[in-house]
Amino acid sequence: MAEPHHLVVVGGGFGGLQLVKDLEGAPVRITLVDRRNHHLFQPLLYQVATTILATSEIAWPIRRLFRDRADVTTLLSEVTGVDPAAKTVLLSGGGAVSYDTLVLATGATHAYFGHDEWEAVAPGLKTLEDATTIRRRMLTAFERAELEEDAARREALLTFVIVGAGPTGVELAGIIAEIAHQILPGEFRRIDTRKARVVLIEAGSRILAGFSEDLSAYAERALKALGVEVLTETRVTDCDREGVTIGEGAIASRTIVWAAGVQASPAAQWLGIPADRAGRAIVQADLTAPGLPDVFVIGDTASVAQENGKLVPGVAPAAKQQGAFVARVIRARLEGGEAPAGFRYRNQGNLATIGRRSAIVDFGRIRLKGTLAWWIWGLAHIYFLIGTRSRFAVAWSWLWTYLSGQHSARLITQGEAQNPPR
Amino acid sequence: MAEPHHLVVVGGGFGGLQLVKDLEGAPVRITLVDRRNHHLFQPLLYQVATTILATSEIAWPIRRLFRDRADVTTLLSEVTGVDPAAKTVLLSGGGAVSYDTLVLATGATHAYFGHDEWEAVAPGLKTLEDATTIRRRMLTAFERAELEEDAARREALLTFVIVGAGPTGVELAGIIAEIAHQILPGEFRRIDTRKARVVLIEAGSRILAGFSEDLSAYAERALKALGVEVLTETRVTDCDREGVTIGEGAIASRTIVWAAGVQASPAAQWLGIPADRAGRAIVQADLTAPGLPDVFVIGDTASVAQENGKLVPGVAPAAKQQGAFVARVIRARLEGGEAPAGFRYRNQGNLATIGRRSAIVDFGRIRLKGTLAWWIWGLAHIYFLIGTRSRFAVAWSWLWTYLSGQHSARLITQGEAQNPPR
Repeated sequence: MAEPHHLVVVGGGFGGLQLVKDLEGAPVRITLVDRRNHHLFQPLLYQVATTILATSEIAWPIRRLFRDRADVTTLLSEVTGVDPAAKTVLLSGGGAVSYDTLVLATGATHAYFGHDEWEAVAPGLKTLEDATTIRRRMLTAFERAELEEDAARREALLTFVIVGAGPTGVELAGIIAEIAHQILPGEFRRIDTRKARVVLIEAGSRILAGFSEDLSAYAERALKALGVEVLTETRVTDCDREGVTIGEGAIASRTIVWAAGVQASPAAQWLGIPADRAGRAIVQADLTAPGLPDVFVIGDTASVAQENGKLVPGVAPAAKQQGAFVARVIRARLEGGEAPAGFRYRNQGNLATIGRRSAIVDFGRIRLKGTLAWWIWGLAHIYFLIGTRSRFAVAWSWLWTYLSGQHSARLITQGEAQNPPR
Repeated sequence: MAEPHHLVVVGGGFGGLQLVKDLEGAPVRITLVDRRNHHLFQPLLYQVATTILATSEIAWPIRRLFRDRADVTTLLSEVTGVDPAAKTVLLSGGGAVSYDTLVLATGATHAYFGHDEWEAVAPGLKTLEDATTIRRRMLTAFERAELEEDAARREALLTFVIVGAGPTGVELAGIIAEIAHQILPGEFRRIDTRKARVVLIEAGSRILAGFSEDLSAYAERALKALGVEVLTETRVTDCDREGVTIGEGAIASRTIVWAAGVQASPAAQWLGIPADRAGRAIVQADLTAPGLPDVFVIGDTASVAQENGKLVPGVAPAAKQQGAFVARVIRARLEGGEAPAGFRYRNQGNLATIGRRSAIVDFGRIRLKGTLAWWIWGLAHIYFLIGTRSRFAVAWSWLWTYLSGQHSARLITQGEAQNPPR
């Protein structure tokens, strides 16, 4: 008997997972490689950073998800390159895995526009470690402020800057403002956390540029009502331990979070194919790499045009749709039948929360804001979580936060806190 | 009006917390200093290390606990010494806090009997970071074994050694064996996790020396039924990256956990008073330091004799009883009334779990084992957790694990996993 067709999937994010799911029963042996042991529900990562959810509520061991799929082998390893001529994926440590078909779904990380040195002072939010780093820095800043004798230093400790006003930046700013202004007052004896500043900086002309103008304006008003200072058309020209520089001015801050740009994984480099400015591999309409019909690139690391000329956005639904599309192509190739035409992105709507009880929802024709939108947002996210246990746990955490106004994951871990306040 | 009496409490563990609670309404201003922002429910820490519970389910921000106590100021800072002559506590970073009365409740850490270099390869279990380190190493070992081509290295990756068979060692061994033999099989394609070895090494003649001999024998049988190899009267003479050396023999292992000894905090050194062999400050019957009537030492860092001549054990109930005792002494001093005589320890019983559904309970006259003991153990621990939210969350996690046989916190975080397998 011939060995079955071997598909290697690199990356267990939304795209990779959907692909593997949809290939159940197909005549193919699958190897799924990820450098993490878990699939991460990134749309809720900001809630881990802001002490609402625990890490284990939004992440699941990949190998557990495919426990009952004997056709799937999961490998925890980092891919360092691809040899398309030898049809081989190279693993760090010197190993290699050969493939018949390869799907790269390796995602993106944050980009500092040529200023990678900013990362140390202004972490982005892509991994569980990023989330706990931001949580630790934010909580530690309040603790250090309580001990600080110098007024200027205290003020810098109580100033939180978020760079970039996409959904992640807006969601972080809203919750940090709530923590400072509504949750922490009363717990400190020397500082008044209600005086903490939360500053959201956006280079563009409005926040949440992906939403309609009226929803974006509503979100800005809602953020301001929570006490967030919103600075649009403002470009950060420097970041360091003292704070951020914006043109002529400066904001002294000890806690900066970067939510401004993304940089694709090096999939295009590995394959030696052209990439766009953000490093995304420019793929064909069927999501294959140009000249490499057995190699697909999907999700945040692929650059694909929509019919309206815009790029398919780097969001979870787009990655899932691409995973499902490639599964159909692979099935058609192996089982016969008609392969689908080029990939077409269906916009399933944009959602973002502003603080604990408000959200905006943009379905194109239908637009909602406020409490109702928050409930739709919440139900949608619980629906998309994996497994009964997580749905219960997250629903319980949210209900608790909603009713008690308390966050449950306010822990400083990983040692920085042991470096005592200056 | 005179400044109220200033009490400084160092350490927000079981003893320090009980003390502060019991002083509610007393004519005293309290400053509680801890180098962590959270109180940790250490008796369940092994469940975080073994992927059953999330970190936030067993830890609570100290300042949140005393939010409504205007008389309590919480400081996140590390104490580096005490100046008893100046009645001052020294903080790292150069700060200082003066006191009228001082209580040191600074706990203990693990001891390597003069081999501190073993810590890097054989972490102990005292902090949340320790727990996530052990969790990461254990999960990563299985992942690396799945990728390993060499049989001997694969075997070393699938061998887990726990040194020390007190309650923590026994509880870790039981759950690690269950994970390897009952939870993970079916998720890996190249290794058979049922063949993983879990070895529990104890220098003494029996495991769980704090329990009666029949319960200790029962626990050993129960562990063996779970597939744990129990080696008593076996002394570890060396630990390194390859494994442990036991006398003439050696066990190749990539995952070693240290549950063998404790070393008290340097409270005795700070005060310049005698300490016992484990570094515990030898205190008077009323828990004051000899020659320093305004300084108390309580909990795991104090050495106090019971009436039977044995030392009060380093367990949570003892620390709580000492906190409550010192609160009564301080009240008597400030409010008048009779100060209690010397501290007397009431043994409230010993509990330990063996795996997921069995436990032993030793109340002196009443001894229980098996499933009923497990339920008593579970209810007791849920009762002692802090807050409705945690009780629900932990009860839900346990119920889920009990019914589904699945653990919810199987995450590899903090980067070691990014160093790919060799």
